[in-house]
Amino acid sequence: MPPKVLQDNLDVDLVVKYKVPGKDKNAAIQQFQGLIRRFAQLNLEIEVRAGDDSSLFIFIKAKNDEAFADVIYRSRIRDWLHGVRQIQPIKETVGTLIEAPLTEAERLRIIYEMLTAQHMDGGAGITPKYGDWKNVEAIFPLHNHERNKKWLAEWSKKSFLTPDDLDELRNAMGEKVGYYYAFLQSYLQFLMFPAAFGFSVKVLLGNFSPVYMIGIGMWSVIFLEYWKRQEKELSVRWGVKNVGTLESKRREFRPEHVQKDPITGEDMAIFPAKKRLQRQLLQIPLAIGCAIALGLVICTCYAIEVFISEVYSGPLKSVLVFSPTILLVTAVPTVSSFLNKYAEQLTQFENYETQGAHDQAMISKVFIINFITSYLAMSLTSFVYVPFASILVPYLDIFSLTVKPFAEDEKQTRAPTSAQFSINPQRLPNQMFYFAVTAQLISLATETIVPILQRKGEDKIASMKSSASKRNGGAHPSVASSDHAEETGFLTRVREEASLPDYDVTADLREMVIQFGYLVLFSVVWPLTPVSYFINNWFELRSDTFKLTTQSRRPIPDRADSIGPWLNCIEFLAWLGSITSAALAYMFSDGGLGPDGRPSKIKLGFLLLSVFFSEHTFLIFRNVVRHVISKLDSDNMRKERSERFMVRRKFLQDAGLGDVVKPLTSPTDSALKAMDTGSSGLDRRSLEEDARNDSLRDSNSTTRFWNRQRGWQETESVGLRLIDMMENEGERKTK
Amino acid sequence: MPPKVLQDNLDVDLVVKYKVPGKDKNAAIQQFQGLIRRFAQLNLEIEVRAGDDSSLFIFIKAKNDEAFADVIYRSRIRDWLHGVRQIQPIKETVGTLIEAPLTEAERLRIIYEMLTAQHMDGGAGITPKYGDWKNVEAIFPLHNHERNKKWLAEWSKKSFLTPDDLDELRNAMGEKVGYYYAFLQSYLQFLMFPAAFGFSVKVLLGNFSPVYMIGIGMWSVIFLEYWKRQEKELSVRWGVKNVGTLESKRREFRPEHVQKDPITGEDMAIFPAKKRLQRQLLQIPLAIGCAIALGLVICTCYAIEVFISEVYSGPLKSVLVFSPTILLVTAVPTVSSFLNKYAEQLTQFENYETQGAHDQAMISKVFIINFITSYLAMSLTSFVYVPFASILVPYLDIFSLTVKPFAEDEKQTRAPTSAQFSINPQRLPNQMFYFAVTAQLISLATETIVPILQRKGEDKIASMKSSASKRNGGAHPSVASSDHAEETGFLTRVREEASLPDYDVTADLREMVIQFGYLVLFSVVWPLTPVSYFINNWFELRSDTFKLTTQSRRPIPDRADSIGPWLNCIEFLAWLGSITSAALAYMFSDGGLGPDGRPSKIKLGFLLLSVFFSEHTFLIFRNVVRHVISKLDSDNMRKERSERFMVRRKFLQDAGLGDVVKPLTSPTDSALKAMDTGSSGLDRRSLEEDARNDSLRDSNSTTRFWNRQRGWQETESVGLRLIDMMENEGERKTK
Repeated sequence: MPPKVLQDNLDVDLVVKYKVPGKDKNAAIQQFQGLIRRFAQLNLEIEVRAGDDSSLFIFIKAKNDEAFADVIYRSRIRDWLHGVRQIQPIKETVGTLIEAPLTEAERLRIIYEMLTAQHMDGGAGITPKYGDWKNVEAIFPLHNHERNKKWLAEWSKKSFLTPDDLDELRNAMGEKVGYYYAFLQSYLQFLMFPAAFGFSVKVLLGNFSPVYMIGIGMWSVIFLEYWKRQEKELSVRWGVKNVGTLESKRREFRPEHVQKDPITGEDMAIFPAKKRLQRQLLQIPLAIGCAIALGLVICTCYAIEVFISEVYSGPLKSVLVFSPTILLVTAVPTVSSFLNKYAEQLTQFENYETQGAHDQAMISKVFIINFITSYLAMSLTSFVYVPFASILVPYLDIFSLTVKPFAEDEKQTRAPTSAQFSINPQRLPNQMFYFAVTAQLISLATETIVPILQRKGEDKIASMKSSASKRNGGAHPSVASSDHAEETGFLTRVREEASLPDYDVTADLREMVIQFGYLVLFSVVWPLTPVSYFINNWFELRSDTFKLTTQSRRPIPDRADSIGPWLNCIEFLAWLGSITSAALAYMFSDGGLGPDGRPSKIKLGFLLLSVFFSEHTFLIFRNVVRHVISKLDSDNMRKERSERFMVRRKFLQDAGLGDVVKPLTSPTDSALKAMDTGSSGLDRRSLEEDARNDSLRDSNSTTRFWNRQRGWQETESVGLRLIDMMENEGERKTK
Repeated sequence: MPPKVLQDNLDVDLVVKYKVPGKDKNAAIQQFQGLIRRFAQLNLEIEVRAGDDSSLFIFIKAKNDEAFADVIYRSRIRDWLHGVRQIQPIKETVGTLIEAPLTEAERLRIIYEMLTAQHMDGGAGITPKYGDWKNVEAIFPLHNHERNKKWLAEWSKKSFLTPDDLDELRNAMGEKVGYYYAFLQSYLQFLMFPAAFGFSVKVLLGNFSPVYMIGIGMWSVIFLEYWKRQEKELSVRWGVKNVGTLESKRREFRPEHVQKDPITGEDMAIFPAKKRLQRQLLQIPLAIGCAIALGLVICTCYAIEVFISEVYSGPLKSVLVFSPTILLVTAVPTVSSFLNKYAEQLTQFENYETQGAHDQAMISKVFIINFITSYLAMSLTSFVYVPFASILVPYLDIFSLTVKPFAEDEKQTRAPTSAQFSINPQRLPNQMFYFAVTAQLISLATETIVPILQRKGEDKIASMKSSASKRNGGAHPSVASSDHAEETGFLTRVREEASLPDYDVTADLREMVIQFGYLVLFSVVWPLTPVSYFINNWFELRSDTFKLTTQSRRPIPDRADSIGPWLNCIEFLAWLGSITSAALAYMFSDGGLGPDGRPSKIKLGFLLLSVFFSEHTFLIFRNVVRHVISKLDSDNMRKERSERFMVRRKFLQDAGLGDVVKPLTSPTDSALKAMDTGSSGLDRRSLEEDARNDSLRDSNSTTRFWNRQRGWQETESVGLRLIDMMENEGERKTK
C-alpha cells in the first residue's frame, strides 16, 4: 500500500527527471552541472532530490519577481505581434501577472518554454531526450490531485460538461487537451439527435432505411459546420486565435543551407520546398504499401473466416472459426506498427521546419493506415461479400487445405457452386454490431482497466526485485531511502507520477475520428449505432479524464486553435459517408434483403445514380449550412470585433489623429454672412479681369486656370451666376 | 470635327458634374452652395466652369500641403491597422507624400474618399446620385490622353503585357481594373497550352476525344490554382492584401435598430443576420423563376428551331429557320433584364451593410441568370437533343401551327415517327462553333464599333439640335460659349469625357467567366475552341483598353485584392466541366457518332461511371495541385515574411525587449571556479543541517522544501553527491 500522499505540490512548477547514465561518470557530472547552471541563469529556483535508483529529480519554481514578469510580458508581446492577442499588453513589472490573470496553464507553458526555447529566443535550449539532452528523460508538471478528484466526482454525476468545466480543464491542462474535451463534448451532445432518430427509425422502418441515410448525412454536415464554428468561438474565448502561426521550430530540422535574408539580415535556414515535395512523393509507395500489406492480411483473414463459417461443415467448426480472428488480431498490429514506423521515418525524412507541419504530415499518414485497418473489413462485407459472394465463394476452395486436417471427408471442405450458395444475411448487421458495441467495450476496458493491472503487476515485480536485492546486497540503503522524513510522501508521489506514461491526446482524438467514420460510413446498416456510441462516449469522456488524471503524467499545457488535421479527416469521412450510405441504402432497398450475393440484382446505373444524387445533395446542403452559419453572429465574435475596434481607435488617437471621428465643423452663421456679403458685390467680369491680370504675370496655363476664381467665395458666386444664366435661358426657351 | 484638344489636364484631380435642376431655383442654389462650402472645408482648391446647357463642372485639386499630407497619413495608418500595410507609416508632414511614392491611383482614391466618406470619418459625405446629392451626376478624374495613346500603341505590338505594364495600369486606374487585366493576361497566357493541345488533338484524334477532356480538366485545375496564387502575389506586390476587410459602409443600408456597443461605447447599426437569411430565402423563387422563365423561352425557341430546320420541309424554310433566332434575340434580353431588375431589388432588400457584401450577393444572382442564358442551349443539344431526339421530335407536331401558313401540304409539317427520324450530327459542333467564334466576333464588334457609331449619331443629333435652336433662339449664346478662349480645347474635352458612360469592370469580367465556362463545359465537342478563344482574347485585351481609355469615363481607382466572387463562379464551372465533359466524351465514345437520338445506345451505368470517375479524379487532382502550389515559395512572399519579421523585431526593441535575441551569457571562467571552490567544501550533511535550522524558524513545509538547498551551487553539489552514491551502488552490485 502506498503511504498517504501529501496533496500539496509545494509550489513546484516543473519536475525534470534526469537519468544518470551508468557508464560515463564524467559526462554525467558535466551534463548535470550544465543543466543546473542553465536553470540558475534563467533565475529559477531549483532543488534536487533522488529519483529512483538511477535518476535525479530537479524541482523547478519560477520566482514571482520582475524577471519572470518580464518573461511573461515578452511572451504576451509576441502573441500580440502574431495576432493571437487583440490588445497590446502593457508593460508593468509584476502587475503584468495580475492584469490578465495568469492561468496555471499559461504559467507552466511559459516556464516550459523558458527551458526549451532556443538560446536566440532567450531560452535554455533543453530538448528532452534529444542530442546533448538525451538523459533528460522528462519534464513534467505535477498533478493537482484534489482538483482531479473533484473533476472525477463531479463529472460522473453530470450528463454534460458546462463551458465552465471546459474552461477549468483548459486552465489546468492547456488548450490542446481543452479542444479534445470540447470536441468530445460537442460530439456527445450532437449524438443525441441521431441516437433518438436512429432508435425511431429502427423501430418504425428497420435497417437500411434511406430516411436514416438522409438524416445521418444532414446531421454530419450540421455537426461538422457547428464544430468548426465552435472551434473559432473557443479560440476567441480562450485567446488562442492564430496560435497556429506561432509555431516552434523543430530541433531535428536539417536545413540544406543557411542564407542571409537580404531584408532582415538574419540567417535563414533553408530547405527547398521542391525537394520536400519530391520526398513527399514517397507517400505514394507508402499508401500503396499500406493498401497491399494490410489489404492482403485483412482480405485473407476475411476469406478464411467466410470459408470456415460458411463453407466448411466438418468438425471443430466452432473452434476453427476463431482462427482467422486470432490471425487478424496478431497480424494487423504487427503490420501496422511496421507501417507506422516507416511513416514516422518518412515524415522525419520530409524534414519539416515546424512541429505543427511535422505533426500534420504524420497524422495524415496515420489516418491512412487507420482508415484501412478500421474500415476495410466492413467494406469487404458491404461491397464485396454481399453483392458478389455467390461468384467469389466457389474460389475459396483454395483454403480447403487449411482445414483439411480437421475435415472428415472432402465434401466438408468443398465450396458450393454459385447456385447452391446463399449468403449469410446477418453477417453485415452482426459486423456492425461488433464495431458499434463490442469493440467499443473492449477499447474502453483496454484504456482503463488494463493500464491499472499492468501498473499493479509492474509494482509487484519492482517490489519483489527490491526485496530480492535487499536480501542480496544486505545493508546499503537505496538512494530513495535518503529522503527527508517530512518529504517522503511527496517524493513517493512524484516518483509514481514520473513512472506514468505521457498523455497522448492524438490517440484519443483518433479514436473518436474512427468512431465518427463508422457512424457516417456504415451506420445505415444498423440504426442503433448512434445510441450505442452515445452511451459509450458518455463513459469515454469520464474514462479519458480518469486516464488523464491518474494513469498519465500531467501533460505540459500546449496551445492549439483547433483539433488540427483531424478536422480534415472528419470532413473527408463525412463526404465519403454520403457515397457509401447511398450505395448501401440502394443495395438493400428491397426491404433490407439486399442483393443476396447475386450481382445481377444490382443495376449499376441506379446504384451510381443514387450515389451521384446523394453526394451532390450532400455538397449543396453543406454549402448552404456553411453559408448560414458563417452569417450568424455570436457574443464572442462581437466582443472580438469591438476589441479590435478599440485597439484601432486607440492607435489613431495615439498617432495624434484622434480628430478623425470628429464631425466637420461648419462655418458659423456670422462667418457665412461675411462670406455672402463679401462675394455678392463681385461681378463676374471684374473677377475674370482680375484673373487675367494675374495671368499676365504668370504665363503657365495651369496657374492661370486655377487662379481665375480666387477663393471659394468667388467660385460660388461665379457658379451662381452660371446657374442664373441657365435658368434664364430655360425660361426664354419655354416662352 | 472636335477642335484640337489640350493634352494637359491642368493638374485637375477630379471633376464634379453638377446637374442644375430646372425646376427649383432656390434648391439648386442652396445645394450648389453646400457643395462648394464642403469642398472649401476640406481645404481643396476649386474652380467652377459651365458644363453643358444644364450642368456645371466643379474642378477639384488637392493642395500639396500639410493638411493633405495628414489625410494621406491617416489613410495609411488605417490601412496598417487593418493589416493592409505591413510597415507602420511614419508621420512626416509632406515627407509622407514622398516616403512611399504616392501613385496617381492612390492620390485620386484618397481625394475621392475625402469627398464621399461619412462625416464621422472626416469626409464631406457626398454620395453621387443619392439622397441630398442626387444632382451630383458624377465625380470622375480626367483621362491622361498621352499615356492612353502610348498604351494603345505599345500594347498592340506586344504578344503579352509585362508585369511593368500591369503595374503602370494599376498605378493609373487602381487595383480593381488592374486585377481584371492581370486575370485576362494570365488567362491569355494559359490559353496557349489548350490551344496547342486542342489543335493537335483535332488533327490527330478529332472531336470528342477523352484525351482532350482529361487535358482540359487538368489545365483548368492548374490555371485556377495558379491564378489564386497569382492573386495573392499581386496583393503583396500592389500592397492591397486584406483590403477586403476595409470595406466602405453602404449608404443605402437600413439598420433595424441602433444600439450602443457595451465595450466601445460606439453606436452600432444593427440588422439581424437571421432576418437577412430569411430574406435571402427569396433567392430560391428567383432561381426557380429564372429557370422557368428563361428556360421556357429558350426551350421553346430551340424546339421551334429544330422543328423548322429538321421537320418542316415546305417553302421559305431558309427564311423561317431564322424566326426562332429572332424570337430568342428579342425575348431573352427582355426576360433577363426583367430578372436582373428583380435581382437588383432583392439584393437591395437583403440590406447589406457593406458595398462588398452587396456586390457579392448581386454577382451571384447575375451569375445564375447568365448561366442559364449562356449554357442552356448547348446543354439542350448535348443532353436532350442528341440522346433523346428520336423520342422527342415526334412531339414537335404542336409547332406545325406556326408554319402552317407557309406549308403547301400537311406532309411538310408532320413530324416523322421515331424510326424515320435521324438527328443532324453537325448540330452540336455547329453550335459550339457559333459560341467559340461567331458570338465572340459579334461581342467584340458590339463592344468597340457600336459605341463609336452610337456616339457619332448622338453627336450629330446634338449638333443638329443646337443649330436648330440657334436658328430659333437667335442671338443668346449657349452657356458653353462663355468659355475662355484659352480653355476652350480643355473644356470641350472635359465635356466629351463627362458624356461618356462609366466603365464597368464587372461586365468585362463576366464575359471572360462565361467564356471560360464554354471552354471547360463543352469544348470537348470542338477542340479548336481554345485556339479561337486565344485569338479572340488577344484582341479582347486591346479592345478593352480602347473601351476603357476612349469610350468610358476614367474610373475612380478602386482597390481590390482579388477578382472577387467571380473566382467562385470559375471554380464552380471547372467542377461542372469535369462532369459534362466526361458525359459528352462517353456519349460520343463510338468514334464521335454519338447516341444518334436513340437513348438505347447509352448505358446509364457506364455514363455515370465515367462521370463519377472523372469528377473524383478532378477533385483529387485539384487537392494535389493545391497542396503543391501552397508549398512553393515566391519572392513576394519571402519579402512579406521578412517585412513582418522586421516589424515584430522593431516592436520588441521599442518595447525595451531587444535582448530577446541575445544569447544567454555564460558565467566567466573565474566565476565558475569560484563557484566550484565555494561548493566543493560543503558537506551534504552540513547543508541539510543548515536547511533544518532554517526550517525551524519557518514552519511552512513548502518553504522548508525550497530552502533545503540554498543557491544553485548547493543544489549542484547535492546532486553530484547523489550521482556519486548511485555509481558506487552500481559498482558494488556489479562486483
